[in-house]
Amino acid sequence: MNYLLTLVPSLLATQEVVVTASTKDIQDAVSAINGDMGMLWMLIAGILVFFMQAGFTLVETGMTSSKNAINIAMKNLLDICVGSITYWFVGYSLMYGETTNGWFFWSGLMQGEGADLFFQTMFAATAATIVSGAIAGRTKYSTYAIFSIVMTALIYPIAGGWQWQGSGWLTDLGFIDFAGSSIVHSVGGWAALVAAFMVGPRIGKFVDGKVLPMPGHNQILATLGVFILWLGWFGFNGGSQLAWGGANSIAASTVVLITNLAGAAGGLGALITTWIWYGKPNLPQTLNGVLAGLVSITAGCGNMSAVGAIFAGLIGGVLVVFSIEFIEKKLKIDDAIGAASVHGVAGAWGTLVIGLWGISADGPIGLLNGGGASQLGTQAIGVLAYGLWAIVLSYIILKLLKVTMGLRVTEAEEIIGLDLAEHGDIAYPGKRDRG
Amino acid sequence: MNYLLTLVPSLLATQEVVVTASTKDIQDAVSAINGDMGMLWMLIAGILVFFMQAGFTLVETGMTSSKNAINIAMKNLLDICVGSITYWFVGYSLMYGETTNGWFFWSGLMQGEGADLFFQTMFAATAATIVSGAIAGRTKYSTYAIFSIVMTALIYPIAGGWQWQGSGWLTDLGFIDFAGSSIVHSVGGWAALVAAFMVGPRIGKFVDGKVLPMPGHNQILATLGVFILWLGWFGFNGGSQLAWGGANSIAASTVVLITNLAGAAGGLGALITTWIWYGKPNLPQTLNGVLAGLVSITAGCGNMSAVGAIFAGLIGGVLVVFSIEFIEKKLKIDDAIGAASVHGVAGAWGTLVIGLWGISADGPIGLLNGGGASQLGTQAIGVLAYGLWAIVLSYIILKLLKVTMGLRVTEAEEIIGLDLAEHGDIAYPGKRDRG
Amino acid sequence: MNYLLTLVPSLLATQEVVVTASTKDIQDAVSAINGDMGMLWMLIAGILVFFMQAGFTLVETGMTSSKNAINIAMKNLLDICVGSITYWFVGYSLMYGETTNGWFFWSGLMQGEGADLFFQTMFAATAATIVSGAIAGRTKYSTYAIFSIVMTALIYPIAGGWQWQGSGWLTDLGFIDFAGSSIVHSVGGWAALVAAFMVGPRIGKFVDGKVLPMPGHNQILATLGVFILWLGWFGFNGGSQLAWGGANSIAASTVVLITNLAGAAGGLGALITTWIWYGKPNLPQTLNGVLAGLVSITAGCGNMSAVGAIFAGLIGGVLVVFSIEFIEKKLKIDDAIGAASVHGVAGAWGTLVIGLWGISADGPIGLLNGGGASQLGTQAIGVLAYGLWAIVLSYIILKLLKVTMGLRVTEAEEIIGLDLAEHGDIAYPGKRDRG
Repeated sequence: MNYLLTLVPSLLATQEVVVTASTKDIQDAVSAINGDMGMLWMLIAGILVFFMQAGFTLVETGMTSSKNAINIAMKNLLDICVGSITYWFVGYSLMYGETTNGWFFWSGLMQGEGADLFFQTMFAATAATIVSGAIAGRTKYSTYAIFSIVMTALIYPIAGGWQWQGSGWLTDLGFIDFAGSSIVHSVGGWAALVAAFMVGPRIGKFVDGKVLPMPGHNQILATLGVFILWLGWFGFNGGSQLAWGGANSIAASTVVLITNLAGAAGGLGALITTWIWYGKPNLPQTLNGVLAGLVSITAGCGNMSAVGAIFAGLIGGVLVVFSIEFIEKKLKIDDAIGAASVHGVAGAWGTLVIGLWGISADGPIGLLNGGGASQLGTQAIGVLAYGLWAIVLSYIILKLLKVTMGLRVTEAEEIIGLDLAEHGDIAYPGKRDRG
Repeated sequence: MNYLLTLVPSLLATQEVVVTASTKDIQDAVSAINGDMGMLWMLIAGILVFFMQAGFTLVETGMTSSKNAINIAMKNLLDICVGSITYWFVGYSLMYGETTNGWFFWSGLMQGEGADLFFQTMFAATAATIVSGAIAGRTKYSTYAIFSIVMTALIYPIAGGWQWQGSGWLTDLGFIDFAGSSIVHSVGGWAALVAAFMVGPRIGKFVDGKVLPMPGHNQILATLGVFILWLGWFGFNGGSQLAWGGANSIAASTVVLITNLAGAAGGLGALITTWIWYGKPNLPQTLNGVLAGLVSITAGCGNMSAVGAIFAGLIGGVLVVFSIEFIEKKLKIDDAIGAASVHGVAGAWGTLVIGLWGISADGPIGLLNGGGASQLGTQAIGVLAYGLWAIVLSYIILKLLKVTMGLRVTEAEEIIGLDLAEHGDIAYPGKRDRG
Repeated sequence: MNYLLTLVPSLLATQEVVVTASTKDIQDAVSAINGDMGMLWMLIAGILVFFMQAGFTLVETGMTSSKNAINIAMKNLLDICVGSITYWFVGYSLMYGETTNGWFFWSGLMQGEGADLFFQTMFAATAATIVSGAIAGRTKYSTYAIFSIVMTALIYPIAGGWQWQGSGWLTDLGFIDFAGSSIVHSVGGWAALVAAFMVGPRIGKFVDGKVLPMPGHNQILATLGVFILWLGWFGFNGGSQLAWGGANSIAASTVVLITNLAGAAGGLGALITTWIWYGKPNLPQTLNGVLAGLVSITAGCGNMSAVGAIFAGLIGGVLVVFSIEFIEKKLKIDDAIGAASVHGVAGAWGTLVIGLWGISADGPIGLLNGGGASQLGTQAIGVLAYGLWAIVLSYIILKLLKVTMGLRVTEAEEIIGLDLAEHGDIAYPGKRDRG
C-alpha cells in the first residue's frame, strides 16, 4: 500500500509524505529499543542490588549481639549514604574514566547515565558493607566512617577499573570476573579480614586459649537477610550483563537461573557438611553456605553451564564451613559473621573455578572445559592482584586510622555495648508498660 | 529518501547497500522484541516469586513457637535449595516434556530457556513450602527432607503437566487454572492436610477434648511475611501471562490489578468476619484472609472482571476463617498455621468460582457469566483430580516414610523444641551481656 | 531482497504479498513498543510502591510500643485493603475523571488501564498510611477505619486531580510536583498532624510540663522498614515518569539516581546533625533523615540536577530533626513517629526548593536556577493549597468522628495496650515452653 503511494506523487501532494523504510531503519529502531530495554533491566537490577543493603544489615545484626544492633544498622546506613555520594562524586570516574594507563582511570566529575551510574554505585556500597560485619561489636563509629569513605571512593573503584573499565590491565590479560567474585566480594572480604585482625577480637571470644561461641541474637532476621541478599543477587549477577534484547535477554536470564542453582547448591553443601561434621544441620552455616554459593558463581555466571554452577556453588558451600573454622580456630582472628570466608575465600574460589570448568558453553552437562592452565593462571593472577590490593590498602588505611583516631572503643564501652556507648540508645527497649 | 536510492543504482555503488523493508520485516522485529519483553517480565516475575520463600518463612515462624523457628527456617531453606535443583534436574521435564499421553510427560534433562525454567522452578518450591508450616513443631527434619524432594521432583510436576504442558488431559477438557489455585496451592494445601493428619497434633494442642490456642511468637514477622507474599503474588499471577507486548501487556497488567483487589477483599472479608464473630478484628485471621483472597483469584485472574475478583477474594477471606475453625475443632487436625484452609480450601474455591462468574470479560461489573454448568463441572473435575492426586500421593509417601524413618520427633525433643533437638541451636539467644 | 520482490509482480503471485514499509510504519511500531515498555515499568514501579506498605508497617511498629504493634499492623492492612477498593471504586475517577472545572473531576466508575490504575492506587494507600503512625497507641480502630476510607476515597484523590489530572487549576498555574512531595506526602503529613493534635497525646508523653521519650520497641524492624521504603521510592518517583523508551528511559533512570542521592544526603544530614546536636549519631533520627531526604526530592526529581538533589535532601534531613523537636517540645503535639515532620515539613520543603534551584538542567553542578520568584510563588501556592485542604478536611472529618464515634480508646485500654484492648491478642506471646 505504502509502496503504491510512492509511485503516485500526485496522491502525495494532498497527503503526508510517505518515506519508504530500509531494513537499516528497522535495525536502528531495534537497536534503540534494545538500548531502552537494557536500561530498564539495569535500573531494575540496580534497585535489587540496593536492597542487598537491607540484607547485609539483617545478616550482620542477626548474627551478632543485640547490644550492638543499632551500631551495625548505623554502619550499614553510613555505607549506602556515604557510598552513594562518594561513588557519584569520584568513584565512578576513578573506575570508568577515560584517561587511563591500564591501572588508574579518571575523567573528572562524570555525570554518567542514570541507570548505569546507579547500578555501579550499589556495587561500591556492597564492597564497603562487607567489612562492617566482620568488625562488629568493638570498632569506633567515627573510624569506620572514614574507612567507609575510603573504600567507596578509592579502594574499590581504582581496582574495579582494572577489569571493568574495559581497557584495564586485567582485561588485557584475559581475566574473567563477570559480576565481581574478586572485584567486589573478595576485595570486601580481604579488607574485612585485615580489619578484623587489626581491630582485634571481641572481649570474650578467645579465653584461655579456647574459642568461645558468640551466637547471634536473632537467627530469623539473619535468615530474612539471606533471602533478601539472594533476591538482590539476581540483580547483581543478571544486571552485570549490562544489556537486554536478543542474545542478551537469553544470556541474562541464564545468568539468573544458574545464580539460583549455585546459591541453592551452596546452601545444600553447607547443610550437609554441618549435618555430617557437627551431627546436626546448622542454620547459620547453611545461611553462610547460600551466600558462599552465590559468591562462588558471581565471577563465572556469564559462561558456566548449569552443572558447572551447581558444583561451583556446592564446593563453595562446603569450603565456607571449614574456612570459618580455620580463620577462627587456627588464625585466631575474630571475624564476627564469617565475612572473610563468605566473600574472600568463596570469592577467590569462584574466580579460580572458571579456569577449571568455567568457560564451557556446551549445554547443561558440559563440565570439563576451563580453558586450560593458561586461563587458570590468568584467574590466579586476578585473585592475587585483588587480594594484595585489598590487603595492602586496607592495612595502610587502618594503620593510619589506628595511630590517629584509634580503631577500637574502650573496654567499658564494648562491654556495655556499642548501641549505648556510641549511639546512646538500645535496639529493643522492651518496656511493654510504656510507649 | 531510501526509496529514491533504490531507484538509482549508481548511487548505491558508492554507498552501503540500502535494502527496502517490508511490513513483514517490521512484524518480525516487533515479534522478536515482544519475545524479549516477555522474557524480561517473566524473569522479574520469577524473582518476585522467589521472594515468596522469605514470606513463607516469616509467616510460618511468626505464627508458631520461637522454640521451632530455626527448624522452620531450615525447612524453607531446604525447599528452595532442594527444589531448585530437583526441579531443574527432573521436575521441569516431567511437567513440560514433549513425550506425552496427556497424563505423564518426559523429555530427558531439559536445559530449558533461562527465564521460563527459573519462573517454573519457583512455583515448584512454593508448592513444597506450603506443607512445612502445617506440620511445624513435631516433624523430623530428615523425613521432611525426603518429602520435599518428592514434592518438587514428582508430585507437583507430574500433575502440573496435566494442565500447563498444553496438551494434558485437563487442558483438553477445557479446565481453567491460570496461575495455579489448584495446580500449586491446593496441591500444596491438601498435602499439608494429609501431612498434619499423619504426623498428629502438637503436644498440648488437644487436651481433654478441648482445643487450646498455640499463638505464634511474632505477629509482626508474620505480617511482614504476608506483605512479602502479596508482593510475590504479583509475579506469581502476572508472570503467568508468560508474555509481554501488545494485548499481553494489558492482560498482565490487569492480572496484577485484580490480584491486588482480590487480596484486599480477602483481607477485609476475614477482618470483618472476625470482628463480627470474635467481637474484635483479629490479626492472624486477617493475614490468612489476605492470603486466601490471593489464592482465590489465582486460577481466575486471567479472565475475571474486577468486581468478580473482589467477590471471589471476599468470599475466600470469609471461608478461610470458618475452614480453619472447622479443621481444628471438628476434624481435630492440628494444621499449625492454617495452610490447608488458606491454600487447599481457598484454592478449590478459586478454581470453582470460574464456573460461577469467572469468564466474564464485559468490564468491571460483568459479574454473572461463568460459562454455565458445563464449565463449573469441568472446574470441579480439576479440583477433584488435583485433590485426589495430592492426597493419595502424599499419603503413600508419608506412610512409607512413617514405617521407615518415622515422621515425628520424640516427646522430649518436641517439648525442648526442634531448634535445640534437631539443630542444636536457639533462634534468639538473648544474652545481652555477651556476643 | 524485498525490494527485488516489489519489482517482480510475477514472483508475488506465488508468494505471500510483500508490502513495502514506510518510516511511519516503523515509528508506529516503535511507538507501540514504547507504550508496552512504559506499561512494564509502571507495573513494576507500582509493585515497588505497594511494598512501601510493608515499610510503613515496620517503621511505625518498630518506632512505637510492642503493646500496640498488632494495632498498627491492622491499621496498615486496613489502609491497603480499603484503599485498593475505594480508590478503584471512586478515587481514581475523582482524580482522573474527564468532567472537570479544574477543581473537581468525575467520570463514573472508570475501569482504567491496569498498570496505571494499580500504580495510582498505591499512591492513595500511601497517603492514608502516613496518618496511622502519628496517632499510634491511643486511637480507636473503628474510627480509624472510617478515616482511612475518607482519605483514600475523597481527601487524597480530589486534591490530587488539581495537579495530576492534567487540566487542574494548579497545573494551569505552572505548579511542579513530579511525584507528590505535596500531593501525597504533605497531604498525608498535615492530616497526621491534625489527627495527632485532635486525638491528644499518649498517656505519659507530657508529664508535669516535661516531654518524656517513648522509644520504639524494635529499632531493627524500623531500619528494615526504612530500607523497604527507600526501595519502594525508586518506584514511587521513577514510575512517576509514567513512560519508558527513548528520552523517557534516560529521564526515569535519572529520577531514580537522584532520588537515591537525596535519600543518602538526607540520612547524612540527620546523622551529622544529631552527632553535633546530641553528641552521638542517632539511629531513629537518621532513619527519619533518609525518609525526609526522599520526601524532599519527590517533587523535584523530574527536573533537578544531582547536586541540587543532594542539597535538597541534605537540608531535608537537617530540617526533620529540628521539626520533630519543635512539634514535640513547642507545639506539644504527640506525633508518635514524626510523620508530620517527615512527610509534611519535608514535603513542603521539597515543593518549595524547586523554586530555589529545582529546574536547572545544566548538568551535575547547575545549581542556581529555580525559575525565579514567579516559580517560587507558584510552588508556595501549591504548598498552601494542599496544606489548607488537608488540614481543613481532616479537621472536619475528625471532628465529626469525635462527636459521633469518639476518637480515642479509654485510659484503661490505652494502658493495657491496643493489641489486647482492640484485638484481643499480643504481638509477642513469648511462651517458649508452649506453641
